[in-house]
Order: sequence, then structure tokens, then C-alpha cells
Amino acid sequence: MATAAAEYRLSSEDRLKNFVRTVLAKVDVDPADAAIVADVLVASDLRGIESHGVARLQTYYVSRLRAGRIAARPHVETVRETGTSILVDAGNGLGHPAAKRTMESLIAKAREHGAAFGAVRNSNHFGIAGYYAMLALEHDLVGMASTNSVRFGAPTYGRAIMLGTNPFAYAVPAGQEPAFVLDIATTTVPRGKLEVYKRKGLPLRPGWAIDAEGHETLDPAVALKGALLPLGGLGVDTGGHKGYGLGMLADIFCGVLSGGKFGAGLPLPTDPPAPGPISHWFAAFRVDGFREVAAFKADMDKQLRAFKDSPKAPGAERIYVAGEIEHEKTLEHRRTGVPVHNAVWNELEQLAGDLGVPFDIARD
Amino acid sequence: MATAAAEYRLSSEDRLKNFVRTVLAKVDVDPADAAIVADVLVASDLRGIESHGVARLQTYYVSRLRAGRIAARPHVETVRETGTSILVDAGNGLGHPAAKRTMESLIAKAREHGAAFGAVRNSNHFGIAGYYAMLALEHDLVGMASTNSVRFGAPTYGRAIMLGTNPFAYAVPAGQEPAFVLDIATTTVPRGKLEVYKRKGLPLRPGWAIDAEGHETLDPAVALKGALLPLGGLGVDTGGHKGYGLGMLADIFCGVLSGGKFGAGLPLPTDPPAPGPISHWFAAFRVDGFREVAAFKADMDKQLRAFKDSPKAPGAERIYVAGEIEHEKTLEHRRTGVPVHNAVWNELEQLAGDLGVPFDIARD
Repeated sequence: MATAAAEYRLSSEDRLKNFVRTVLAKVDVDPADAAIVADVLVASDLRGIESHGVARLQTYYVSRLRAGRIAARPHVETVRETGTSILVDAGNGLGHPAAKRTMESLIAKAREHGAAFGAVRNSNHFGIAGYYAMLALEHDLVGMASTNSVRFGAPTYGRAIMLGTNPFAYAVPAGQEPAFVLDIATTTVPRGKLEVYKRKGLPLRPGWAIDAEGHETLDPAVALKGALLPLGGLGVDTGGHKGYGLGMLADIFCGVLSGGKFGAGLPLPTDPPAPGPISHWFAAFRVDGFREVAAFKADMDKQLRAFKDSPKAPGAERIYVAGEIEHEKTLEHRRTGVPVHNAVWNELEQLAGDLGVPFDIARD
Repeated sequence: MATAAAEYRLSSEDRLKNFVRTVLAKVDVDPADAAIVADVLVASDLRGIESHGVARLQTYYVSRLRAGRIAARPHVETVRETGTSILVDAGNGLGHPAAKRTMESLIAKAREHGAAFGAVRNSNHFGIAGYYAMLALEHDLVGMASTNSVRFGAPTYGRAIMLGTNPFAYAVPAGQEPAFVLDIATTTVPRGKLEVYKRKGLPLRPGWAIDAEGHETLDPAVALKGALLPLGGLGVDTGGHKGYGLGMLADIFCGVLSGGKFGAGLPLPTDPPAPGPISHWFAAFRVDGFREVAAFKADMDKQLRAFKDSPKAPGAERIYVAGEIEHEKTLEHRRTGVPVHNAVWNELEQLAGDLGVPFDIARD
């Protein structure tokens, strides 16, 4: 989606984070937890992933906290722990604090023992998976993160809604180049994209969605009553079974491994405003278990540059590597301000009024 | 591809393995190494993945061993090792023995410490990635494997051949149900599929390949002079950047992390019969780092059955879970015999004649 400047107003990283913290504190979230949510949401807006940023503050988090469907003061518990693994029960609290602290625990374990895996169950939407994978970077670790989600998608050859958008994220440190950060849903597109196309009256692309009977459809209104297709599209000819397999792998790593909800045990999007309970999965390992870090990073730079400098397809302006666009947007948004869509801006202003907190997110 | 019975003759698991061992011993491969190659190749044929089985014995392995391009008696060296990681240099030997032994070492590490990662560099084609991931299953570990390969594919928005088919494989144990085994190339299709379509005079599907200038093409002859597309197809609208990202991730995990060859440092398919040097990557972690194994397996069975039993799309006979087809074929082929395509059968017979070894692979 292009960002038409007139549709956006500019905030700043600090003011936006401060606003999120203030709002969440007002609905009884612990300040330390609120600070983590603010950091994750604003990181998403900084990276240009506005779908997962402050746009969701009201609908995904505050409304559910106020309705008591997400616990503002959850009882978070470490269920099982070894030198290289940890399982946390988030007590139906916000996903971000439990996820960040679990990843930090994993990172400490991986630094000490070389490798670690972890999961969080009984949690809620945690924002962008890439945020947690990226926490590994400054420690010269490779980081991985995944989550299951409310259900949107059908399996290959099926028509029932059985799988979330179930992303996998991977972060690998580089040297002079920005880190390699891949953060991808295992459905071809998110459900939100169908809504945008419906609003604009545009036909969908093949490979995106099926109707309720399981036939592929290009009609967004019909698709919204059907299901998303896995990455690779319908059937197996274009690899739909691969996206389906990755989506189920995410559900297994997050939901089954954690002893949480999985498969049809997860809510449908037609049950709003349903919170999880969803689960997350994480991993980290030391680069220097394999090579000296400096040599690795020098080769990472070579690899990333070689792809970016390779011959372009007709009409292509640039070849990107994973995480590059988001890195550049972060730099740009730190310089010029964080764009917030007018509709989101107005919603946040109304939220501030509802809660009786100051609304001063505009940048100077 | 349907298996027309008339085009196939039936061998048996034991006789086919014995033949592979005999052939490799004749070209000076150590008997223990030869036994591992036989096990991996025949496992592939048992699983119905004939492209990666004994069909490649002559072209991928024996011809290169005889030409001195793969070392029959390699100097295999453990380059770096910790309690949770291992890096092996395969000395330009066959990929299978180095890969299997490295995965076995990882499994021992993961059993002791909970988690482990490993890589092999300076290696060659190792058969199916799923074989190595599956070694974890009997130890109640989750297994992962990947490899980079000779280059076939272009990055999103690019036209240069920069990436192999770079598969990822994951194996997760279940209870009564067959294990979940996902083994997927990160290109939409393998290059061999273009060759089959050219031979049959069939048009390709969108999302499979581009011509040498970077335009999508449905002409297999043109595509064979171009490049494969990543899973998700051309551009980003159907998620091509996701397959591209996963393909580069595999190249990073295998080639960059191991200090091996990566990116444009890998051979092109137009340089035959070029061996690697390619690299592999592995991981394993303990299920009971998260949950009791029995409870996990019971939930895996529930998950796998729920997908298989979910409502089918129109015209679909079954919904599969990853690894199910291959598991059923293995059982069938153990019962009825291992099908070997007539062309492959004849090639193996000629190979036996060339090397002066007995050819008695037909089942009773």
C-alpha cells in the first residue's frame, strides 16, 4: 500500500510511546508491562508496518483489557525451565511483555549455553514477531520467533478455517549492512488485505483466498466469508502445501509444544473481540558456535550486497534483502516523524478523551 | 506426477541398498560411508521422492567420484565444537555421511543439553533434507535440516541466478499418527519439473519461472535458460518475497554460518558435472524441555487428525498433513516393492556393467 502523505499526520517515537504507556497505565496495566507494549507497537510503526502498530491499541488491546478479556495484571508463571529451554504461561495477559521477557530469558540461556528454545502459552496478540527475533541481534545471536493467531486460513484441499496467519521471523546479524530480518505470515496475505480490497472495490489476486465452499475467489466480500489461502496459493501446483505446512508447523511449535490452544481450539475472527489464548515460540543460538563473529558478519555483508547489486528484472527499481525496507523506514521515521493514519489518529484522540488522558502525540 | 505402473519395475529395499553399497565401494567409497548413502537414497525412493533416490546414483555421485570431483576418501574434520554446536568440514566428500554423522552428533548434544545446532561445509548433494531431520524423531526431539545447492533461482525483482532450491525440513514426533515431516524447497518447483514439462510439451504454471531477461514465462524451454521463481511466485503480490527470504535464510544458515560457499559463490547448473561445495545446517531440541512427551504426542495426534478430518474443498479426496503421503508410500513400497523407473533401471544396469558388479536389484 502506498502511503499518501495527506492521509497521515506525524507523531514522534517518544510521544507515541509515552501515549501508549499512559493509556495502558490508565486501564491498570503495570507500567513496566506498558512500556514494553509501547516499545513493540511503536517499533512496528517505525518499521512501516502500520497494521501492527498503534492502530491496534484500541481494538486489540485497550477494548479487551477494559472488557476484562485480557488480564491487565496477569499471573505470569514459568511452567518449566532448563538451561536451554523455558515455557511461560502468560496468564491471559498482554502478549508483548511475556514474549519479550521470555525471549530475554532465552537470550541469556543461549549466551551461556550456546542455544535455547522457549514458548509462551495462554497469551494474546504480541505485535510483530520480528521484534522478538531482533532482540537477539545485539548479542551476536541468531533469533527466531513465531506465534499462532486467531484463525483465518484453510489447509490445502480443505475449506474449513483451521489456521492463523502464523508468522515465522528470523533475525541474523550483519556487519556494516542492516541485519537480515525476515518476518513473514504463512498465509499469502493477511485478512486485513481483503478488507482493504473490498473497501477499494478491487479484485483479489489468485492465490489469496477461497469462498466458504472452498473455491478460489477474487471477490473480497466473498473471500471475507471464506478463508485465506496458505503461501503458495490453491492446491499444490504453486506450492500451497508448503505454506500450509509452515503454518501448521508454527501452530505446532507455538500451540502444541506449549500445551496451549491449537488448531480448531483457537478463536475465529467472527468471535470479536475475542482475545487469544494464543501461544508464541522462540529460539536463539550463538553465531560463534560456528565461526568467529567478525568473519561471519563480513560474509553476511558480502551476501546481502551481492543480492542487492545483482541484475534487476525489467521495471524493477531495486532488489531488496529481508528487513532492508523496514530498516530504512525506521531511519526515515526517526528523522521526519512517525506517520499515523488520520483514521487512527482520530481514534487515538477519542480514546484519550474516553480515558481522560492527555493527547499530545503530534511531533514538534 | 502419476506413477504409471508399466513404466516401473520393482526392486526391494534390501537389494537396492545392497546395490548402492556395492557400486560405491567399487569407486573406492569407504563401506561405512557407502552404507549411509544407500540408506538415504533408498529412503527417498521408499518415500516416493524418486527424483532424489537411486535415480541420481550415477549422475550426481558415481560420475563425480570417478572424475575425482567428489573425494571418495575425504578428510572430514570437526572445525569447531561446543556442548550445543558443531561445525564439520566434509572435505569435499559425499554429503550423506558427513550430514548424517553431524546430525547424530547434534542429537547427542541435544539429548544431553536440551538443544543443539550444527553445520557441514565443503560438502556435496546430501539427498533429501527430511532424512536428517527425521533422525531426531526416535529420540523425542524436534529435528530441522537445510542445505544450499547449485544455483537455479532468482531473487524477487531480480533476474540473475543467485539461489539454490534451498530446502528446509522439519520433523516433529507424534503418537499413533505418523510424525509431522515437512520437507520443502524454497523455490516454487525444482528445475527438474521444468525439464519434465519441456519433454511433455506442456506449458508451465504462473509462479514457476522467468526467462533470462526476468519476465515470467510459461515456456519450459525458455524457462530453462532463465531462472526458477521463489515460493510465492513473481514479485511480491503473491508472496514471492517470502520464498526468496526463506531461500536466502537457508543459504545464510548453511553457507555463511559454516564459512562455506554461498550466494554467487555456488556453482551454476550449467557447469556440469559440478559437485558442491555446498553446505548443510541442522538443529534439534528436546520436546520435554517444554512438556511431558506423552502429553505432547497425544496433542500432536489430535492436531494432525483434526486437519485430516476437516471439511474438504470441492473435488478434493483427502486433506493431508506433512509427511503423510511419504509415510504411506514407505509402508506400501516395503510391502509391494520399491518402484524404479525403467530409464533409471536401465541406467543402473549399465552402471553395474561398467563397474563389473552384479546387478540383481529385482524383487522376488
